[in-house]
This record gives sequence, structure tokens and C-alpha cells, in this order.
Amino acid sequence: VKKIAVVLSGCGYLDGTEITEAVSTLICLSELGADVKCFAPSVEFQAFNHFDKTDAGQTRNSLIESARIARSEVSNITELKEKDFDAVVFPGGFGAAKNLSDWATKGSAAYINKEVSRVIRQFHKAIKPIGAICIAPAVVAKVLGEENVTVTIGEDTVTAAEIEKTGARHSKCAVDDYISDRDHKVLTTPAYMYENAKPSEVFNGIRRMLIELVEMA
Amino acid sequence: VKKIAVVLSGCGYLDGTEITEAVSTLICLSELGADVKCFAPSVEFQAFNHFDKTDAGQTRNSLIESARIARSEVSNITELKEKDFDAVVFPGGFGAAKNLSDWATKGSAAYINKEVSRVIRQFHKAIKPIGAICIAPAVVAKVLGEENVTVTIGEDTVTAAEIEKTGARHSKCAVDDYISDRDHKVLTTPAYMYENAKPSEVFNGIRRMLIELVEMA
Repeated sequence: VKKIAVVLSGCGYLDGTEITEAVSTLICLSELGADVKCFAPSVEFQAFNHFDKTDAGQTRNSLIESARIARSEVSNITELKEKDFDAVVFPGGFGAAKNLSDWATKGSAAYINKEVSRVIRQFHKAIKPIGAICIAPAVVAKVLGEENVTVTIGEDTVTAAEIEKTGARHSKCAVDDYISDRDHKVLTTPAYMYENAKPSEVFNGIRRMLIELVEMA
Repeated sequence: VKKIAVVLSGCGYLDGTEITEAVSTLICLSELGADVKCFAPSVEFQAFNHFDKTDAGQTRNSLIESARIARSEVSNITELKEKDFDAVVFPGGFGAAKNLSDWATKGSAAYINKEVSRVIRQFHKAIKPIGAICIAPAVVAKVLGEENVTVTIGEDTVTAAEIEKTGARHSKCAVDDYISDRDHKVLTTPAYMYENAKPSEVFNGIRRMLIELVEMA
């Protein structure tokens, strides 16, 4: 049985984890027979009202909100040890660019949460697969850019150019497909980087990526 | 193209919609080629901390929180007109028993949100399918109990007995299966009424139910 860590960043695409991406990941990993544990950093953030897209006027915490997706089964990322897992997966959503890093405002000059950075470096060093979805590949690129990893965030040329400033390479990809950098064991799929994607397209891109990731793990 | 309304009640299994059930519904309906719109009532509720299972000390709103699952594309249930849709689906989670009704505290004596009650009665009168997941079948049973509809919430005998007090019949069902009351066009699947269900089992039960619901719609 392959053991897979999933790193969340809240609950909701505008201030946390993109929910359909996270749930697709959990459904597919369970279908593939993997043993999954969820983690998240404990970061306070300003909640965004997803209905009218204004400030919600509340502070929330990314670990506590992630527990909504994980049905309370989530641990602080400080407890994520590379030796306990065969692979790690990062779903997307603005939380990856706001709570796991400050990519949303700084782009390729982003600071990456030090625990997130530690996890990516440790899995990479141990030659264990790293999966990243939507905007999360930018976080992986920032940490592993100097090693010229290849990732995709779909076909958004502005974000792709920003990713290439880290040293990483960007490869275009359709919503229901994925890119596999087999040399570095980095697998990425664009998901809701295509804003008008259908849930089933997002699910299929993630599913295809995870089939290879679990086999590789 | 079949038009399906999905009624949410927040975002998180302890105070809103069960997220895996809602996302499974959206993925499967999109895979089946249906045209989906999400709705929720606008109800203030005490948020529950899903990490340590205590009161979160914040008031939230079920319509605003539902927008997290629906990527901002959700309307007030007051705008849900039966004539615009071919079927309606209610995912579960405590939100169905707390925000769509007070079943969580009152059981078969529950008050059902008047808009939720209106929607169920209108779809039933128009002989259009009603799907309900997890604890949501209890809400449907309460509204349509006098017509002896058959529903499932799995195998929890206490809840099943409470449902039968409404006049509805309860039928046992496995997590990855569903019950179809074809006379009344009421389709139900237990999902996370089995607390330790795997995400893929929940997905498969919902998927099987929705295949029949879309065909019937």
C-alpha cells in the first residue's frame, strides 16, 4: 500500500485549497488503494467572502479550515515526515499562493512557507514523487527551480513566464491532461487554472496524474 | 441537456454540506452532461471548528459558505423555480439537519426550512426526480412522509426508526449503492452516514444514484 501525504491550505478557492481539486485527489487516491493523510500549515488569514467576492471581515486559520475538507483528519505540516510517506501531493487554489507562499503578490520572488519548502526538498532529495495541481506547481518550481524541473499551469503565459524566472521550465497542458517530469518525479496538472473548466475535466486530469504518481511512488 | 438543481447548506460536514458528497455530485453530474446550478438558503449559523470539534466562536452564513464549494456560482434558494429544472439533488452533512431543517435536534418533529419544503413539494408534484444523500433523505422523508416514500440512510437503526415516524419507509443500503423509489422518483444513497466510508465508496454510491436520476429526469 502506497502512503501519500496531501498538503492543504484552507477550504475554498479564493483563500484556501480549491475544493474540487482536493476532493478529486482524495477520491482518486482512495480508488487507487493508497493510504492518505492530510496536512496543512497553521496560518492565520483574512477570509474572503466567496459569494460576493469581498473581504469576509473574519480571520480564519488554514489548518482549522482544512479540517472541513479532511473530515477533521488533518495534522499540522510540522508533523509531516518524509520517511513516513511514498509521495506528496499539493492541490491548488489561492491558498497555495497566499497561505503556502506569497506567490500571489510576489510571483517568482515569493517566500515559501518554511515547512512547505522543507517537505518539497526532502521528498525531492529522497527521489519520491511530488504532485502539484493548478497554481501549486509554482510553489514547487520556486523551491526546485534551480534543478530545472518541468511543470505546467496550463496555458496562462504570464504565470508561465513568471515560473520560468525560477529556473523551472513550463510546458503547456490541457485541463484533462498532466505533465510528468520523470527525471525529477514532479507531476503537475492545470485543473482550475482553466477558470471555466468543468468539474469532470478537473477530476480526469487529476486522476490521470495520480495514476502515474501512485505507480511511481 | 438535463437541468439539475443542487441544494447546498454551507461548507463542511459538521455545520454545512458534506464536501466530498457535494463535489462528487458536481463531478458526476458534469460527467453525465447535465447543466447544474447550485442553490442554498441564507441562514446564519454558529461555525464549528472542524479541527478540534469545538464551537469556532464565529457566525457564518450558509449561502456565503456554500459559495466555496460552488466556486461563487450559487444562488439563494428563493430563486429556485421548479419549472427551470428537471431534477433536484440534496447532498448531506449536518447542514441538512441544522440549516435546511432542525432534524439534528428535533428528529421526526423537525421544522423544515420553508423554501426547502416548497422545493421538495413542487418537484414531487411535477413528478420530477429528487435525489438525497447521507442525512438529507430525512428532510425529504419529513416533507413527503405522508406519501409513504421509501428512502435510505444506510443501516443506522435509530435514525431509520425516526424516519419511519414521518410515514416514510426505510430500506437498508450499502455505502456504494442507492435506493430508488421509482413510484415517487425519490433516489437516496447513504454516503457518510457510514462514518468510516472511503471517499471512493461515497463517490461510487452517488455516481450510481445520479446515473439513474439523470436518465429519469
